[in-house]
Amino acid sequence: MPLPNDLKDKFIEIVEVNHVLTDPSLYGPYTDDFTDHYKSQPLVILRPNSTEQVSQIIKLCAENRLGVVVQGGNTNLTGSASTSTPDSEVLISLTRMKNLVSVDTKGDSMVVEAGMTLADVHKCAEDNGKFFPLSFAAEGNATIGGCLACNAGGVAVLRYGTTRELVLGIEVVLPDGRIWNGLRSLRKDNTGYDLKNLFMGSEGTLGVITKVVLKLFPIPKEKETSLVCVESPAKAVALLNRVKDSAGSLLTAFELISEKPISRVKKNLPDVEVPELSPSPWKVLLELSLFEKKEESVLESILEQAFEAEEITDAIIANSLKDSHKFWHVRESIPLADRTEGGSIHSDISLPIASIPEFLEVSLKRLKEEFPWIEDSIFGHLGDGNLHYNFVSPEDPTLTYRFEEEIRRNLYTTVIEYNGSISAEHGIGMLKKHHNDEFKDPIELELMKKIKNAIDPEGIMNPGKLI
Amino acid sequence: MPLPNDLKDKFIEIVEVNHVLTDPSLYGPYTDDFTDHYKSQPLVILRPNSTEQVSQIIKLCAENRLGVVVQGGNTNLTGSASTSTPDSEVLISLTRMKNLVSVDTKGDSMVVEAGMTLADVHKCAEDNGKFFPLSFAAEGNATIGGCLACNAGGVAVLRYGTTRELVLGIEVVLPDGRIWNGLRSLRKDNTGYDLKNLFMGSEGTLGVITKVVLKLFPIPKEKETSLVCVESPAKAVALLNRVKDSAGSLLTAFELISEKPISRVKKNLPDVEVPELSPSPWKVLLELSLFEKKEESVLESILEQAFEAEEITDAIIANSLKDSHKFWHVRESIPLADRTEGGSIHSDISLPIASIPEFLEVSLKRLKEEFPWIEDSIFGHLGDGNLHYNFVSPEDPTLTYRFEEEIRRNLYTTVIEYNGSISAEHGIGMLKKHHNDEFKDPIELELMKKIKNAIDPEGIMNPGKLI
Repeated sequence: MPLPNDLKDKFIEIVEVNHVLTDPSLYGPYTDDFTDHYKSQPLVILRPNSTEQVSQIIKLCAENRLGVVVQGGNTNLTGSASTSTPDSEVLISLTRMKNLVSVDTKGDSMVVEAGMTLADVHKCAEDNGKFFPLSFAAEGNATIGGCLACNAGGVAVLRYGTTRELVLGIEVVLPDGRIWNGLRSLRKDNTGYDLKNLFMGSEGTLGVITKVVLKLFPIPKEKETSLVCVESPAKAVALLNRVKDSAGSLLTAFELISEKPISRVKKNLPDVEVPELSPSPWKVLLELSLFEKKEESVLESILEQAFEAEEITDAIIANSLKDSHKFWHVRESIPLADRTEGGSIHSDISLPIASIPEFLEVSLKRLKEEFPWIEDSIFGHLGDGNLHYNFVSPEDPTLTYRFEEEIRRNLYTTVIEYNGSISAEHGIGMLKKHHNDEFKDPIELELMKKIKNAIDPEGIMNPGKLI
Repeated sequence: MPLPNDLKDKFIEIVEVNHVLTDPSLYGPYTDDFTDHYKSQPLVILRPNSTEQVSQIIKLCAENRLGVVVQGGNTNLTGSASTSTPDSEVLISLTRMKNLVSVDTKGDSMVVEAGMTLADVHKCAEDNGKFFPLSFAAEGNATIGGCLACNAGGVAVLRYGTTRELVLGIEVVLPDGRIWNGLRSLRKDNTGYDLKNLFMGSEGTLGVITKVVLKLFPIPKEKETSLVCVESPAKAVALLNRVKDSAGSLLTAFELISEKPISRVKKNLPDVEVPELSPSPWKVLLELSLFEKKEESVLESILEQAFEAEEITDAIIANSLKDSHKFWHVRESIPLADRTEGGSIHSDISLPIASIPEFLEVSLKRLKEEFPWIEDSIFGHLGDGNLHYNFVSPEDPTLTYRFEEEIRRNLYTTVIEYNGSISAEHGIGMLKKHHNDEFKDPIELELMKKIKNAIDPEGIMNPGKLI
């Protein structure tokens, strides 16, 4: 249906005419999904600039039983910020709500509006002599509200936790349009159910997060980054435990990377400088964050011991920040190198860390049996047990897409067998909803539905996603 | 009502006759509350030894619409492990469910039954070369299940977080007796609503936590402990920020202690050795945990800078583990010294850290105006914004008890004005239920009730507590 004129007028009254978009030729940035997988067809796109406006919009949607999709930077990878049925849902973009509300440098917290990009959150923290650790490739566009809605992970989870652990309070517009002000900046509060964590990670299905109280941290004084050669994932797990035992909370990143995607970076992205190291089937990229200036490298002595214990075969330590960026740039170039190779599909599974070596062996064998042509591209946050277990099919790029469903089923079956998760950080959205319905504990799904019905009985919040 | 015989027979069938207690003369350890405030009168006390037995008990209670109170070590401070109406509720003690299920030293996690004491959890971790950081005075009796139910805090929250942040997975018997197996040991899992955090901190009102997957950490190699003199809470906040900026995540404890309770320790507990320091109205007890052996003290240079900046007036650094225990023993002796003084009542408020100096001034003034005879005993985890704001009335110990309600209302009113919480770590239970109903955001209370009704529609789980 087209947007009825009376409703359009009411929306214009709330957010002004410039921010009620009904011309599909202007929809692009909001409807074209980051993964080229989903194309939204909203009834209307609204761009409110305050919690009060969001509240009024949701009230109107509730009265008219209109589905609501809320969007931040539109960088989601599972379709959770896209419409699920054409011409019937209201798409709300929060990108105009990007203000810094307040900073408390003595209490190490900061209040921001949900539409601020993660990169701007970093900047606001740094401008105040503080550090906000959440970090991932899309941070220039991704909004902090989106990070909360999907409980984003990234490269510093090992030390600082996922988004959940970085948030002190939230403000939420509920499915009936009322505003819950949970903007507390307390480190400890045991006065009721943990509503904050319930809304976080619920992918917009319970309400609209409009403001956030974030934890801030001291800026590390120094970083030590190293790229290391290991013969197997088992050796990488041994190294991980050695570094954790020796460096404790100084360890902030521990990434495992298969040589295969690195060789694709070399081949497809010749401008990316890949450090020279002895040949090895796996690499580890690890980083310590130090809070005092050191004369001697902490990492060097740990890596020497690892070498003597035959856990690693070669290693290079960054001599400068530039070097360190170079190491990370290799890691971050993998998705583009894979896409260039052809037929790239991605996943973000997690597993109990100790079971990863065996899981990799078993799962790869099963995948190769069913899809002999498949080529794997495995890398990820080993320190969190989270792998990006991706695939390419360079011979025929259409193959992986044609068999995507079967590939995912094959992979996820092994993941569940090893007590893992089919989504460590990207979430469920529309992409994995049917997989989640199939693989998740039915009692857990039932509890989720009970909560959904209790908080959003009309089911207007982000229909067709997650649940 | 007395327990009907047919029901008694059914309970005996589930847990065997020795573990169905109906003789009140045997009730003591389960019914006499830690705070001498509540005296339970259960219909029966059951002591199951497996999740399956708990499940069968809850099924039977659900069929008969019997209220269920679950108890760990019975060390709760708010009555949340006591019955709320006499002779009508089933009290379940989980203290027989105290087994270690499994340890994963490579993945840094451990599965234990809910009835294991926190002290035994520490021991199991240490026996496997690991560290579990949750720690507080009652850890010899408190069970890990109780810690989860109340989201216990303690002395290491600053670095490691509250119980919530130390748990990877849980197993729960739901109000209909079914078992939800959420015993995942994953560091990241974004496949649905955060049920784990919903059950944690719900004080037994949503289900019975029967098993737990705990995070383990490397054992710190060394600790540096110091007792420091400061002139005011504002100076203590400045010192906190200095240490955080200089030592980052090495800082594991930062306790503020008023001189008044320390002088009561000296007076009432002459066996406790109090280190000699220059006179000052406030002391700070702080601790760093180091992961490498150091030749030079990290703390010494930080404290020297703080002295030059006139943030501190004197300091003593522990020379040995024995010294360090001595410092902590002073801190831990305060509650007993206060009780000896007479009329001790306790609270566990939290506030945004930066507002604590002003809050203390304003709240003390208001309390002294209404209760000129009152004497304060303030100490607590300043690093988390959490204060134990306690009182004594040595002249007439009955005074504080008689005016307890008015004192709490006076204090909590100021707490709420400063955006604080009336319970940082002890929880609500029965003690603060009416205060919570009065002071908590009505929208938040309404959301909590919706969730309670969705998960426990008959309201059998821990009736009369929290909600």
